Amino acid sequence: MSGPNEPGDPSRDLPLDVAVLGATGTVGQRFLSLLDGHPWFRVTTLVASPRSAGRPYADAVDWRLPGDVPEAFADLVVRSADDGPDSGVALAFSGLDTTVAGALETRWANAGVFVVTNASPHRMGADVPLVVPEVNADHLALVRSQSFGVGGAIVANPNCSTIGLVLALAPLHRAFGVEAVSVTTLQAVSGAGYPGVSALDLVDNVVPFIRGEEDKLVEEPAKILGVLGADSVAPAPIQVSPQCFRVPVVDGHTAAVSVRLARDVTADQIVAAWEEFGSGRLGLPSEVVVPIRYTPREDRPQPRLDREFSGGMGITIGRLRPCPVLGWRFVTLSHNTVRGAAGGALLVAEHAVQQGLVSAPQGGQWKPARA
Amino acid sequence: MSGPNEPGDPSRDLPLDVAVLGATGTVGQRFLSLLDGHPWFRVTTLVASPRSAGRPYADAVDWRLPGDVPEAFADLVVRSADDGPDSGVALAFSGLDTTVAGALETRWANAGVFVVTNASPHRMGADVPLVVPEVNADHLALVRSQSFGVGGAIVANPNCSTIGLVLALAPLHRAFGVEAVSVTTLQAVSGAGYPGVSALDLVDNVVPFIRGEEDKLVEEPAKILGVLGADSVAPAPIQVSPQCFRVPVVDGHTAAVSVRLARDVTADQIVAAWEEFGSGRLGLPSEVVVPIRYTPREDRPQPRLDREFSGGMGITIGRLRPCPVLGWRFVTLSHNTVRGAAGGALLVAEHAVQQGLVSAPQGGQWKPARA
Amino acid sequence: MSGPNEPGDPSRDLPLDVAVLGATGTVGQRFLSLLDGHPWFRVTTLVASPRSAGRPYADAVDWRLPGDVPEAFADLVVRSADDGPDSGVALAFSGLDTTVAGALETRWANAGVFVVTNASPHRMGADVPLVVPEVNADHLALVRSQSFGVGGAIVANPNCSTIGLVLALAPLHRAFGVEAVSVTTLQAVSGAGYPGVSALDLVDNVVPFIRGEEDKLVEEPAKILGVLGADSVAPAPIQVSPQCFRVPVVDGHTAAVSVRLARDVTADQIVAAWEEFGSGRLGLPSEVVVPIRYTPREDRPQPRLDREFSGGMGITIGRLRPCPVLGWRFVTLSHNTVRGAAGGALLVAEHAVQQGLVSAPQGGQWKPARA
Amino acid sequence: MSGPNEPGDPSRDLPLDVAVLGATGTVGQRFLSLLDGHPWFRVTTLVASPRSAGRPYADAVDWRLPGDVPEAFADLVVRSADDGPDSGVALAFSGLDTTVAGALETRWANAGVFVVTNASPHRMGADVPLVVPEVNADHLALVRSQSFGVGGAIVANPNCSTIGLVLALAPLHRAFGVEAVSVTTLQAVSGAGYPGVSALDLVDNVVPFIRGEEDKLVEEPAKILGVLGADSVAPAPIQVSPQCFRVPVVDGHTAAVSVRLARDVTADQIVAAWEEFGSGRLGLPSEVVVPIRYTPREDRPQPRLDREFSGGMGITIGRLRPCPVLGWRFVTLSHNTVRGAAGGALLVAEHAVQQGLVSAPQGGQWKPARA
Repeated sequence: MSGPNEPGDPSRDLPLDVAVLGATGTVGQRFLSLLDGHPWFRVTTLVASPRSAGRPYADAVDWRLPGDVPEAFADLVVRSADDGPDSGVALAFSGLDTTVAGALETRWANAGVFVVTNASPHRMGADVPLVVPEVNADHLALVRSQSFGVGGAIVANPNCSTIGLVLALAPLHRAFGVEAVSVTTLQAVSGAGYPGVSALDLVDNVVPFIRGEEDKLVEEPAKILGVLGADSVAPAPIQVSPQCFRVPVVDGHTAAVSVRLARDVTADQIVAAWEEFGSGRLGLPSEVVVPIRYTPREDRPQPRLDREFSGGMGITIGRLRPCPVLGWRFVTLSHNTVRGAAGGALLVAEHAVQQGLVSAPQGGQWKPARA
Repeated sequence: MSGPNEPGDPSRDLPLDVAVLGATGTVGQRFLSLLDGHPWFRVTTLVASPRSAGRPYADAVDWRLPGDVPEAFADLVVRSADDGPDSGVALAFSGLDTTVAGALETRWANAGVFVVTNASPHRMGADVPLVVPEVNADHLALVRSQSFGVGGAIVANPNCSTIGLVLALAPLHRAFGVEAVSVTTLQAVSGAGYPGVSALDLVDNVVPFIRGEEDKLVEEPAKILGVLGADSVAPAPIQVSPQCFRVPVVDGHTAAVSVRLARDVTADQIVAAWEEFGSGRLGLPSEVVVPIRYTPREDRPQPRLDREFSGGMGITIGRLRPCPVLGWRFVTLSHNTVRGAAGGALLVAEHAVQQGLVSAPQGGQWKPARA
Repeated sequence: MSGPNEPGDPSRDLPLDVAVLGATGTVGQRFLSLLDGHPWFRVTTLVASPRSAGRPYADAVDWRLPGDVPEAFADLVVRSADDGPDSGVALAFSGLDTTVAGALETRWANAGVFVVTNASPHRMGADVPLVVPEVNADHLALVRSQSFGVGGAIVANPNCSTIGLVLALAPLHRAFGVEAVSVTTLQAVSGAGYPGVSALDLVDNVVPFIRGEEDKLVEEPAKILGVLGADSVAPAPIQVSPQCFRVPVVDGHTAAVSVRLARDVTADQIVAAWEEFGSGRLGLPSEVVVPIRYTPREDRPQPRLDREFSGGMGITIGRLRPCPVLGWRFVTLSHNTVRGAAGGALLVAEHAVQQGLVSAPQGGQWKPARA
Repeated sequence: MSGPNEPGDPSRDLPLDVAVLGATGTVGQRFLSLLDGHPWFRVTTLVASPRSAGRPYADAVDWRLPGDVPEAFADLVVRSADDGPDSGVALAFSGLDTTVAGALETRWANAGVFVVTNASPHRMGADVPLVVPEVNADHLALVRSQSFGVGGAIVANPNCSTIGLVLALAPLHRAFGVEAVSVTTLQAVSGAGYPGVSALDLVDNVVPFIRGEEDKLVEEPAKILGVLGADSVAPAPIQVSPQCFRVPVVDGHTAAVSVRLARDVTADQIVAAWEEFGSGRLGLPSEVVVPIRYTPREDRPQPRLDREFSGGMGITIGRLRPCPVLGWRFVTLSHNTVRGAAGGALLVAEHAVQQGLVSAPQGGQWKPARA
């Protein structure tokens, strides 16, 4: 007999009822766009600030994605974040603002909900898995060290710019060892939410600063690429030197990257490492068969042309060449609100379900994955 | 008695008659905008492609700068580049296209004209001074090694992205020694001329490639920061690793720079090196009293807000901080068509005049600066 | 027994072999993107300028749409426009440049090919149907008046800005009569092809002029909304006053429209006319079930958010309100390269096939639709 | 002996001490930029929201104009709007937010200050002059009907889009009579203040709605072009049908205008009416010698190239041609934050001073212009 949260056959409880926290924000909208028709997850609860509460979602939201609010969610009545957790859901996806995310997510986890968050407050918590599934799905096991309510957990999706960088670095780190990274990002405006950045800052302009972003690029890759221990992760000894720009692009973070590797390699070996990278065929709904594509075109990747690769879940790398200072240079592009936010979080949740870490609450209380 | 091109009192021959080669292009337009009312230089000859020849300048040009064609030049009849040099001018400013610049500039120099070019073909010639005046005005002496017609010479203005970078590096190189540089540029569209870049490439997009640009950033700084020898320059042993982006900005190249210095310094020492940098008070019309400004604002420099500093001739540096990989990181901004092209070339010419290297042709033939 | 080009059962010959003329241009690329996997049309011939000829399409094209060249066409060898028509195809879609389209399309029609063109030269020809299928599919019958080779014909797709306007006007014209139209367009850069508009013209700028565009907006709607006669169309007596702007938008032409109608109506009647408009269920592959959508949102339509409605084939209208000068005012948005170019032309071709006007060439010569 | 506010020699009291209300906002910043070094007005009081109060201006403001805070104002300590009026100043320029402007401006006027406001609340007040000086400086006399404290008054600057339109219409109305106007504006983001419009709304997009803007374009031109009566203005009988767009342009409102005139005229007569328009030489510091320029270039006016005409105080009109619906069509461009806001308000104030309506407070109480 296995205990709570043991791996098992997740299909018994599917689809699971899920909540979206911060449902009216830009990340929340992207969550709903991706959850529409999802085979494993059925959105039953939408949570937003008190001023949206009590209104049908279609009225409460200022929908900023192309097209309309998905019909399945239009009439769901928004619940106030002040009203406390809905313990009837198995999972909650959080696109909450940083200012409220920390406390609110803790309350939901204490109520027995498995929270997958896109917000930053819990990311660097020692027992919080910070996960890019193709890279470190094994870190999800850290939730067993957490002490929330039965069945409750917090798992974090990294920062949008971190994810694209780490996906590009992981195959190199595994194969050759990455010692140092110098990265300059050109980040899309959707990463700042809505209204986010002022148009006055981005017409005929770029801005060489994004508050808090560079710190995340220093801390998060080391944790994600680190080694899982008993109840925490030993960070990988990789030095990252970041410079973040905001540029007038809707979606798609571009990063110019230089790396120093632990040993001599050829360009062909690097490209092979990227192209062979993947999570294997796990049968997950959001699984990305080709998470990394290398393009030989000299003027690519470009955000407008390449961000939709693999539905926005794959990254595109180009312009690999020797760097006279650090060794190798390349440019990488990832879709910041799909791969870098809601889509990435969804994939994390699917891995967690497959690992048997999540299952449906039963009879008003949490039911372990296998009894 | 001094020979040709010896230093002397340049004021005897001022103003000098000058030509603008490639007068209808974007750099040519900027030359004319800056030469309008210039106290030392009087534009008498405008040269463009044969299809513009014979027409008044105001008709021939598709003026792309704010405002109108300066009145002083509107009625000047454009001369064809095929018609050969006008040996009646002392100086020619070249904004010619790369494809024709090399041969044409040589013809003008052979005809005894002192050519200051913004084009690239001659830049890396061993006896061609490549000059950022505040940094290496002494390199102008190289023209004495050149073997053009009497009084003829070719002096080159560096690439637009090089100039901003070198101005930021020079004070550090002088004071502390620069060993290695990693630079990512975000370059304005005006740098590509007109029509230049397609709008389809820069709406909701950035492009991670500018043909030829990265090579220039590797070669040119080493030459400019190098040491003048008898008839050539010994390049400075500085490794540069560049990545160039085109971004939707009209004017103003931004560069994210990391440097490894030869010795330990503090941030204050670096800022002091920048702020104390200057060419001294030389009394030149385009002289820049403060060529480098350091801003403590965390989100600056920005192209739209800072490019006009010192009339576009000064650069703005910001965000200096330690870099865990190379030592120091900062962001620099320069106006690519003023400092980085026409304005820089004008200042080069003024230095050349002050050094007595240029004077007026006399009686149909070249007259040395002092007889 | 019916004669050539009589209506019949088109399914006998499907799929038809088709050519794309101007296959490497932006419209040609969009044609191929939409023809990929099309159930009725199989692309067998790609035609481009002589400098692309002989190369596999993937090499010859500078693909500018998101994603990659569709695999089905990557290895097709491009044929030179100079080589003359391929009479083995039933249909040709033309995205040729205006400068060469007229003569080339005539040659293909003379060779027995049914040409559906997006280019302008033939549009106003008296016997050339200018078709927005939902509006005037009956005009296709005009091809019977044409005197090209057996089976050959030329049918034109209207200008991209015309299509969006006419779709909005047609229901009003049918129901109430449209007398006068004042329209100001804000047109996307993709409408100008690639490289098309210079980025220098559209960063921090809009341009109040598009060569030839306003004339098309004056002439074309009257023809499309006109009445089919024996061998020509009597234009509708509608005055159009246009002003065209180019704006920094990738795809999606927005138009601010004021109309004077022939009789008094209410806003509800106008919206009803739009919402009830459609071509009926014809069973065509590209058929648009809802070609016109009215949005009550006060700040819509917007290009980025609404252009993909119905896969880019439907238009979105908003902001209907009384106009104190002409009667009614509204804003309409259409996807200029889908609905306004390749997608529209594809739908025209499907209608032509269904009307029995097109069928497969047989035994080296044209085979009538029914023998 | 003349009474209070009678015309007199304004120079006796110059320079006048002035306040800027809303000094940290975008309009306030532009006021200060234009007031720096102004010969008639000396800024002594800066007023902003309580959270800015007590801090030196350079610290309190997030300066968004190119360059730095003018030195003359950097150390002025900001006063809180809650602290009440400063009756020691003669004039106050208001760039306050709409939400607080109405009440605050009334308090300052009651305290004896002559308020020139760029905000909208008072604009349509019957006894409030709404002034474009070249058009209706005579309306300033309305202040004599106002019943504020001695010397106190409120004069309004029209909405930014109104000013450009009215300047173009006024010469036509005077010469030929304007009956109806259909106008579509493409408005710059600076018109919305800072942060104002979200970048997410204006990358690859235009927005067909600006709250409240169209109502202003309907009401304000009629008042400005109206006839001054005893204590109010009889509005001109001009129908205006407006459609306002926000576009990704920093500064410069473009408007596509169609007009129906009361009589037949030629294009030459229209251009002559514009070119002859002016206020005469009044000797005012901000006087605009050529307030209207007509350009024959087919693709102009363009915001980036033409907005700085006459230092941003003159408008540029182009593309005049017959309109088959209303009679004439043209495109006009004005700088929205100079002519359309702070610069326009400054000129209004100078006219008021010259008309003897403003003078310095004396001995703690208001001193009439002539005793």
